[in-house]
Amino acid sequence: MTRRYDEVMSLSLRRGFIWPSVDIYGGFAGFYDYGHLGAMMKRKWEDLWLRYFLGLSERYYLIDTTNILPYKSLKASGHVDHFTDILVKCSGCGLSHRGDHLVADATGKSAEALGTQEIDTEIEKLNIRCPKCKGTLMPSTEFNMMFPLSVGPTGTDQAFLRPETAQGAYLNFKREFESLRRKLPYGLAIVGRAFRNEISPRQGTYRMREFIQAELQIFFNPGTFDDELDFESVADEVIRISFEETKEDGEVEGIEAGDLLGRLPKFYVYHMAKMQQFYLDILKVPRERFRFAELGEKERAFYHKLHFDIEINIDSLGGWGEINGIHYRTDHDLKGHQAGSNEKMTVNVGGERVLPHVLELSFGVDRNIWAFLDVFYEKDDRTVLRLPKEVAPITLGIFPLVSKEGLPELAREVYDSLKHDFSCFYDESGSIGKRYARMDEIGTPYCLTVDFDSLKAKDVTVRERDSTDQKRISIDGLADSLRALLKDEEPA
Amino acid sequence: MTRRYDEVMSLSLRRGFIWPSVDIYGGFAGFYDYGHLGAMMKRKWEDLWLRYFLGLSERYYLIDTTNILPYKSLKASGHVDHFTDILVKCSGCGLSHRGDHLVADATGKSAEALGTQEIDTEIEKLNIRCPKCKGTLMPSTEFNMMFPLSVGPTGTDQAFLRPETAQGAYLNFKREFESLRRKLPYGLAIVGRAFRNEISPRQGTYRMREFIQAELQIFFNPGTFDDELDFESVADEVIRISFEETKEDGEVEGIEAGDLLGRLPKFYVYHMAKMQQFYLDILKVPRERFRFAELGEKERAFYHKLHFDIEINIDSLGGWGEINGIHYRTDHDLKGHQAGSNEKMTVNVGGERVLPHVLELSFGVDRNIWAFLDVFYEKDDRTVLRLPKEVAPITLGIFPLVSKEGLPELAREVYDSLKHDFSCFYDESGSIGKRYARMDEIGTPYCLTVDFDSLKAKDVTVRERDSTDQKRISIDGLADSLRALLKDEEPA
Repeated sequence: MTRRYDEVMSLSLRRGFIWPSVDIYGGFAGFYDYGHLGAMMKRKWEDLWLRYFLGLSERYYLIDTTNILPYKSLKASGHVDHFTDILVKCSGCGLSHRGDHLVADATGKSAEALGTQEIDTEIEKLNIRCPKCKGTLMPSTEFNMMFPLSVGPTGTDQAFLRPETAQGAYLNFKREFESLRRKLPYGLAIVGRAFRNEISPRQGTYRMREFIQAELQIFFNPGTFDDELDFESVADEVIRISFEETKEDGEVEGIEAGDLLGRLPKFYVYHMAKMQQFYLDILKVPRERFRFAELGEKERAFYHKLHFDIEINIDSLGGWGEINGIHYRTDHDLKGHQAGSNEKMTVNVGGERVLPHVLELSFGVDRNIWAFLDVFYEKDDRTVLRLPKEVAPITLGIFPLVSKEGLPELAREVYDSLKHDFSCFYDESGSIGKRYARMDEIGTPYCLTVDFDSLKAKDVTVRERDSTDQKRISIDGLADSLRALLKDEEPA
Repeated sequence: MTRRYDEVMSLSLRRGFIWPSVDIYGGFAGFYDYGHLGAMMKRKWEDLWLRYFLGLSERYYLIDTTNILPYKSLKASGHVDHFTDILVKCSGCGLSHRGDHLVADATGKSAEALGTQEIDTEIEKLNIRCPKCKGTLMPSTEFNMMFPLSVGPTGTDQAFLRPETAQGAYLNFKREFESLRRKLPYGLAIVGRAFRNEISPRQGTYRMREFIQAELQIFFNPGTFDDELDFESVADEVIRISFEETKEDGEVEGIEAGDLLGRLPKFYVYHMAKMQQFYLDILKVPRERFRFAELGEKERAFYHKLHFDIEINIDSLGGWGEINGIHYRTDHDLKGHQAGSNEKMTVNVGGERVLPHVLELSFGVDRNIWAFLDVFYEKDDRTVLRLPKEVAPITLGIFPLVSKEGLPELAREVYDSLKHDFSCFYDESGSIGKRYARMDEIGTPYCLTVDFDSLKAKDVTVRERDSTDQKRISIDGLADSLRALLKDEEPA
């Protein structure tokens, strides 16, 4: 792990963003919990995500579905047969390794596309040994990454923890279509947990066995979707993109959305542009740290026809890291469930029966949280977490300058008047400089201080995190003034 | 199931609040999904719950923890050994039954307090047979209700899905204490899923195998907690309460909080009052449908010293049904984890080492959603779901009176100006009366209609759901006027 990793993890542990689960029992590999600040940041990130992506169309809707799914549904989706990684065991110490990781570590290149035979060939050719004990490695096998369990007292009802939230949307597709507007395109969003029994979880929060996804499944008529979108509104957006051939070199091209149309379908480029705008315009991620990276045929999951990841350049993880994906899943999923369940998944569109195709916008929530802690954490003269205001766990720090002569009383009044509408933190311990520093480190955009002048003028000093600029704002109408500031407007 | 059950379930299925999971594969007993309206209502209920209960103290915090927990942690908590129900199998058809349900169905009285021997005695005495095939029942056994699974590729790391969110708070107790204010009392809230392998799930959403809890664990110094609360502020609250001896008769007493102090600890009564105020004052549940019901020693879970349920009189379930609980868990949990992990769980309070006690406020989110669909659904001359405004899935319906002559354009403008700040639904299909009726049925508190006068006067008609009263409100400043209405204030 890099020095930067230690720096970010130290912040995370010390202030309670995200930390290894069950540490009092010596930890639990691949599992992480959110402390208070992380949980607040995550909920705000989710709210922002929901507002933005459900806001893209009045037919994009939120639903919520179970984490346990029965065998039949995951057999039909293909996960029982194909959702595997390649497992290589050591004949000496018995430790399990991921085959592609062994080969990638030896060659410096991704080996995700290789099958068991190819992995075995590479291991022999490169003379790869167990990284732990140097023992001989056994032939590789396919390992299903789902967690199986049985439901009911007899143990005969086989089920799995869902490996992706997406299946919940496909299983509800028809019923939601009927109870909502009965029109295409329409979308179902789910924010929730998914579970994968990773062979060797590593890189901290980056590859976890239990993780949180925010996914939007868009069901559409492939014959008409392109014409149903306002492509003009995004045609000029310069997409930062790396194609399969050159992405390993870190090369990123800037191509106008309109100019991508020869290579990629219109509906696909339109949603790429919308995703990019979420990161660059709303979340203010530095442009040079953002890119789409193409996955080739062998790297893609078996159900994706087109797959670009959104990657962020994350120093603590040593470079570009996948946080989201945009996946064209065709009619693979609905067709599978139609065959598995014998229920028709076609819908009536203007008198015609259509089996919709699916475009999936998939977001790794934990990876987003980690990426933000990395990208926005500055440790120079000042230590500041320059989080977007909307996702900062605490929005307002509220302090009396000193703990005497009526200042705490007035500061409390201010706190009580704001606490229902904003995430507030009241603090009177330590010097005012220390209190500012503690708020800077967790990304609090504004601190409000009550000083002796406040008692007469009935106002507070509002200090802005990034510039440290201060201005006095009247307590009368304070909530409205703060709302304006949070929208980057001048307070009234 | 009652006629009322069918009525509420019909609403729920038709409009997409909550419905059986995986129905295209013939269903999945004990599992339910949230459709769009249910998911919106649930998220709003959770937001309201968080605002209210975290607002009770500036030291009550939100965290989020994993659903999978390792064996050791649940062994230490007592769940591996004691989290059981009594299982009775039929020797004929092989069906599994819950022993206490068999006895309760035969006697009409709760049998939750009985052990395996007592259940066997009752079954023999009452000559109870398999409800399905009338076959002979086998001797009862204890059945652990947790879902076991194994983590990692070797299958040796045993784990469980968490049976309650609470353990996540206990496992994080010490670390959060250190990273937050290092003071007692302090509280950790978790909103998330819990999993119980119910022997025979029944009563729809009332007893599910995967369900959602909102729980607040309050850690306190038992020597001082009573004095740290502002009991005066709730002393006059008349608590609706049924004690163990009389609750089966449906008797509910109204007792002032102050007068309960002889029978129950002060800190316990204080939080009962706060929970009651949430239901009666904020959510406006009819007073006569709300009560606290005491659980006796044998009915309580093994880790509860004091246990009252919050029950709502739910017609569709045939009477009083538990939706929440308030549990005094003493130092059972922290003591268990201290012994299991060899990590000290005591904290320093003014120079003294204290092992905190725990008061748990536990809420069944799915049960709350169902109870609200039942309690607030009126089907008389008009069909109206009189939901509290804050939890209505859609806040504003926005319609043009007719779909021509500029009305849709203006209605769209109104919709676009409000959609980021409120949950809005735009509709122009069908007569205006039908559109109002569709919104009434899902509990939308206000409908905004653009008519011909609106074009000149730049205003809309705002129709209130419960009274059907209409008033004209200017489009200029509309968002602020609506915010006032939603707080039951006059619009400016």
